[in-house]
This record gives sequence, structure tokens and C-alpha cells, in this order.
Amino acid sequence: MSREEEGEPPRDRLARAALTRIAEPGDETVGRWVAELGPAEVWEAVCEDRRLPAASADRWAGLRLRAARAAPERDLRVIARLGGRFLCPGDREWPTQLDALGAARPLGLWVRGACSLRFVALRSVALVGARACTDYGTHVACECAGALAERGWTVVSGAAYGIDAAAHRGALAAGGPTVAVLACGVDVDYPAAHQELLRAIAECGLVLAELPPGEHPTRGRFVQRNRVIAALTRGTVVVEAARRSGSLNTARHARRLGRHLMAVPGPVTSGLSAGTLRLLREDAVPVGDAAQIVELVGDIGELAEEKEAAVVPRDLLAPQAGLVLDALPVSRPTEAAEVARRACTSERAALARLRELSTLGFVERVGDRWQLRRGAGRHAEPCAHPAPAGG
Amino acid sequence: MSREEEGEPPRDRLARAALTRIAEPGDETVGRWVAELGPAEVWEAVCEDRRLPAASADRWAGLRLRAARAAPERDLRVIARLGGRFLCPGDREWPTQLDALGAARPLGLWVRGACSLRFVALRSVALVGARACTDYGTHVACECAGALAERGWTVVSGAAYGIDAAAHRGALAAGGPTVAVLACGVDVDYPAAHQELLRAIAECGLVLAELPPGEHPTRGRFVQRNRVIAALTRGTVVVEAARRSGSLNTARHARRLGRHLMAVPGPVTSGLSAGTLRLLREDAVPVGDAAQIVELVGDIGELAEEKEAAVVPRDLLAPQAGLVLDALPVSRPTEAAEVARRACTSERAALARLRELSTLGFVERVGDRWQLRRGAGRHAEPCAHPAPAGG
Repeated sequence: MSREEEGEPPRDRLARAALTRIAEPGDETVGRWVAELGPAEVWEAVCEDRRLPAASADRWAGLRLRAARAAPERDLRVIARLGGRFLCPGDREWPTQLDALGAARPLGLWVRGACSLRFVALRSVALVGARACTDYGTHVACECAGALAERGWTVVSGAAYGIDAAAHRGALAAGGPTVAVLACGVDVDYPAAHQELLRAIAECGLVLAELPPGEHPTRGRFVQRNRVIAALTRGTVVVEAARRSGSLNTARHARRLGRHLMAVPGPVTSGLSAGTLRLLREDAVPVGDAAQIVELVGDIGELAEEKEAAVVPRDLLAPQAGLVLDALPVSRPTEAAEVARRACTSERAALARLRELSTLGFVERVGDRWQLRRGAGRHAEPCAHPAPAGG
Repeated sequence: MSREEEGEPPRDRLARAALTRIAEPGDETVGRWVAELGPAEVWEAVCEDRRLPAASADRWAGLRLRAARAAPERDLRVIARLGGRFLCPGDREWPTQLDALGAARPLGLWVRGACSLRFVALRSVALVGARACTDYGTHVACECAGALAERGWTVVSGAAYGIDAAAHRGALAAGGPTVAVLACGVDVDYPAAHQELLRAIAECGLVLAELPPGEHPTRGRFVQRNRVIAALTRGTVVVEAARRSGSLNTARHARRLGRHLMAVPGPVTSGLSAGTLRLLREDAVPVGDAAQIVELVGDIGELAEEKEAAVVPRDLLAPQAGLVLDALPVSRPTEAAEVARRACTSERAALARLRELSTLGFVERVGDRWQLRRGAGRHAEPCAHPAPAGG
């Protein structure tokens, strides 16, 4: 997207780029300054040491220490060389759902990849979870991500080991765009083993970060990164999470932002289900596949297919016919009188029902007795019958 | 309990015993007749062929066919020989929570075992699920049942293969009474392989049925049996259930009766989680252990223990101290000025925090530089940190 199409004047864009270098992601004080004074004025105040309100002397000194090394023109050249760009609020490509973060809205986003962030994030779901996950978690994350991509949904995650990587890979395998939100610069391959994955994501989707090129992750940056994942998407799905998992932090952000919060149930005997069980016991919606996710986050009309098993003919019988069918012994042909007694009806009524059941293929006549037809829907063990769906 | 203590006159008790032989469990028409006319009057009307209202000719004929073979005195002798008894509404031992079934309330209950049904059912939970369950389901059912028994709760189930048997066995292993509600006579070992289990249940708990001795199960009787399990207990827990499982029928009864409905989550990749996932997506409360079950069905004050992991010291740090800790590089001792820049604070403030962190054992001084103390709660990989619990 060319510079002319963007909203803010170059001076403000440059200031935002500089501010992403000196303020930690999610810094609401800086966010409020920018909202009130504009980015250029804030940046100049820092450079010229005109201390702004609500900044302690230490805070201000820290910003000045960082500002001394900031070089926003160079950062913009670096991101351009990477084939990327720096997005600002007001840009056509800016995803306005981030405005829900209020003063903690990112000052700007450093982006690698050809897609439009606004477009791909429009119908997007966050899929996050444990790094040290099990094969079960990997499988579910990969399957869900693939099926979401096939339905035209973008999977957003954090490019971490485990569930995050499985989610990105599942989406990529289905040929869908996927978005990795990093807690470091978009040129920093973190974790290092995901260099190839991050390259693939940037090629088919987007890699983005609030932090300018070269910045490294810290604990606090991971926590703040999670708010961007939650805010970008219509809902967050947690797949496998220990009791104290970082993905529960993403879940809290999603909840606070009023986005849909979902969790994939897992065996309660697994420590990696403790976090998801907790979410489920709070307010998360249990989901088992992409259809159920889309049912929740999708537009009206985009409902999950009904996955009911085919109706078993036995279930279609009138209650009285069912009773008569139950009354037929498994082992031997039986007279109508005994069937009537077992079914608690008259012999006449039992005969009528037996003829009906014979037409439907459930029973057959043997002389003046009646017997079950082999393989006709009533099993040998009554207790092997499923309960009637409507019962 | 001696006959004198019971409420109904012997004539009514005998009539109820006879009616359990001729009416199918849950028959609301017969239930209404008994409520309006009294059991003896209803029984005499059938014997003397005085057709009662709301009975079709066929229905009436069926009742008469069965009545011709009924022998309630003999049934009462049989149950006494089994060391059992026949309970009627109004008896001291009658569990009044069954009255919630209205006209479908059992006409009476045939019981084997020494405990008082009313007493053991007072604090009881139904644990039901798939017959063809997995090791996971067996394990969870057995564990939950054992822990419930240890907390003084009675486990009620249906003595079927799979989850039912695991629930009974878990309760027995913990030395607790458990109640098996059968869809046949209490002298009929169904399934046959559970003869030994049923004997053990009758010894330490109770085996009961609406049907008189000698009756065999039918599909309809299983369905009606489930309503008794649901009505006897404060809540129903479903452990592993396929999409069309009989235990979902018990769940529906529990829901209709306003009892607590719970489900144990399982891997969504398993067909035996389809039923529980469905319940969870409706209104069932997810539970993973006995504490969570008791938290729901128990009296106020009987809450689950807080199972939070021990607080990690890192979480107790003030945010500014956390930022400074994050700012210390893993690999090398660092000067306070650089720490300040990384943490975005003044050098003075950074130094103060570093001294604080040193006292707390997180960092140590090396000449005029600072470094992380090995194994002091901050891991090498920032992303390996759990998110702060409050974040």
C-alpha cells in the first residue's frame, strides 16, 4: 500500500515508529499521551526533555535513555528491506478491532507478508495452547486450523512451540493464510527452531509485532503480545493448557475484550487439561472441531452441520410397537398370547403390532408363532440398545 | 424395619407389590389411578375387571392378562428369602426425592441389602456412562467414585458393563455403600457376568428395582430405570458416552428433574467423548474430580479445595522489579545503565530494583555489573515463563 493512501502525515508515522522503540507494548500512559497530543508531539517532548504528565522522573529518564538510541528512519528502511511495512491506526490496512484495547492499543504494527492484515483478520480465530503439549493437542490444533482455513477463516497464533506451531502448520497445510503475532521484532526468529515456519507464514500469511526490528522477547512482552492476539480475532480457542499456562493469559484478554472464549476438552487425567478444564468451568464454550468454532464466531447462518447419527429404524416405531418388539424373546418363536402378556396388551393388539413389525422387517411368522428377524435392528442384548433420541 | 413402623396397611402394600408385576415401570396412568383411588382399589378393579378411566380396551386386557399370573404374597416371600424387602411410599426408608417423578413415581421398590435406602440416598450422586468405555473412562469413574465414597457420598449407578461397573467398584474399594438400580428383578443377575459384583453391592450397599423378583430387562425398562437413578440422586455425572448413549437418557431425566447435570470432559478425538461434549455444550457442568462434583451437589460450605499450584516467587515481584529482572540478559553480567535502558527506567531506579532483586535471591552483583543467579526462578528462555496468575 503506497504512502499516499495512508492517513497520518509522515511526521506522525515516523514518531509512532520511534515510540514503538521506546515504550513497552501496552504502555497505557504513552497511549494516552499519543491520543491527546498526537504521536509527533509526544516523540518531540521525549527528545526535547519536556516531561509529560503522569510520568515519574524514573519513567521519563528511562524513555530518554531509550530514545537516545532510537533511529526510526533506519527501522523503516530495515522493515522495507525485509519486504515489510509499518502500519499505523488510520491506515487502510489497520484492523480497527484493535481499537477495543483503548489506551493499550498498539502504537503501530511492524508487518511482514503480502496479505492485507485488515482483510485476513476480519474473519479470524486465535488458536493457542501449551508449548509442551501432547500428540492429542497437536492433532486437534492442526485439524481445527486446517478445517478453519478451508472454511475461509484465518488462524492467529503466537508461533511458539507446541499448539501455536501446530495451529500455524495446520492452516498452512490447508493453503490458508495464518498470522503469527510475535513478542519480538519480525526479523527475530523466535524460537530459533521456527525460522523456517516463520518464513512460510510470512510467505502465505503475515508475521507481525508491535516491537520494531531487532527487539527481543521478554516475559512482559509475551503477556502484552497475547492481548493483540485476543483483540485481533473474533474468538480465542485454547487447546491443551496446564494450570498456569501463558495461553490462559490470552484467554483472559479475550474475555476482557468480550470476544468469544472457547476451550477444547481433554482427558481430565492430563495435567495439560487442567487449564482448559478451568476455563470450561468458568465461561469458556467447549468446542471439538472447526464447525463448532465457526458456529460461535461466525455470522448468523454460518452454523455447524448437524452431525447426528442416522436415525435407527427402531427409533421410528410407535411406543406400543416398541413394547411388542421388546416383548419378543430372543431365543425362540413365541405365541401372540405370551407376547401380549409380556408387552402388557391384549392378544388382539399384540397380533396387530406383530403384523406391523413383520411388514417393517423386524419380525417374522413361524407357523402360529413369531420370532425376531436376524439382524433386523433389535440386538440380542436389550441393554446394548441405545436410548431413544427423544426419550 | 418392622411392618408396624410402615405407613400403609398390609392390604395396600400387597396391592402395590401386585401392581409392580402388572404395570411397566413409569406407567403414569396406573400411577394416577393409585394416587386417586389407592393401590388396593386399583388392584381389585383389575382383578374384578372393573375397567378404570383412561385405559383402552387393549391396555385393560393386557393388565388383566398379567394380573392372572401375579402372586404378590409369593413375591414378598421371595424377597424376604433373599434377605430383602419391598418398600412403599410413606415407609420410613422411602426416599422422598422420588416424589419429584409425580405420577411416574415407582409404585414400590424391591430392595436387597442392609442399609437404609433413604439414608444412603440422602447424599448421593449418579455416575453413569458408556458400556464400551475406554481405560480412561474406567479410570476416571473408579477414581471419582472412590473419592466420593471417602467423602461420605453414595454412588448410584446401573450395574451395567463399563462406566457403571467401574463406579460401583470404585465406591466399594473405598469402603463406601453404593446403590445399583436394576431394570430387572433384584434376583436376576444382569448382566450375568456381574453376579459377583451385584452380590458385593448388596452386601455393602443396596441393589434395588421397581420390578418384582424374576422380571427381565427390556429396552423400555432400561429407559425407565434411568429416571429412578436421576431422581434418587442430587446430581448425575456422565463419564464417557457416545453420541447415542443410554446415559444421555439418564442425563435428560436429571435435567428434567432439576438435578445437577455434570459431564467429565474427554479427548474430542474419541467417539466416547461425543456424548459428553454434547452435554457440555448444552448445560452440563464440566467436572474432573470428586471435589468438583461435591462442590456442586454438596451443601453450602462443602467446597472443593483450592488446587492452585504454589505461588512462584517471580509472581510476587512488583511490576517494576519484574521489568528489571526481564531486562537482565541471560548470557552475561550487565551494567546498570544498560539494564535501565532495557527496562525503560532511570539508572538510579534500575539500581534500586537490582539491589532488591539481589536481596530476594534473583540476581547477584559481579563487580559493577549484575547477572541472574542460576536456578533462581527466572528461566533461560523468557517464553518458558508461565504467565502471571493475575495478568
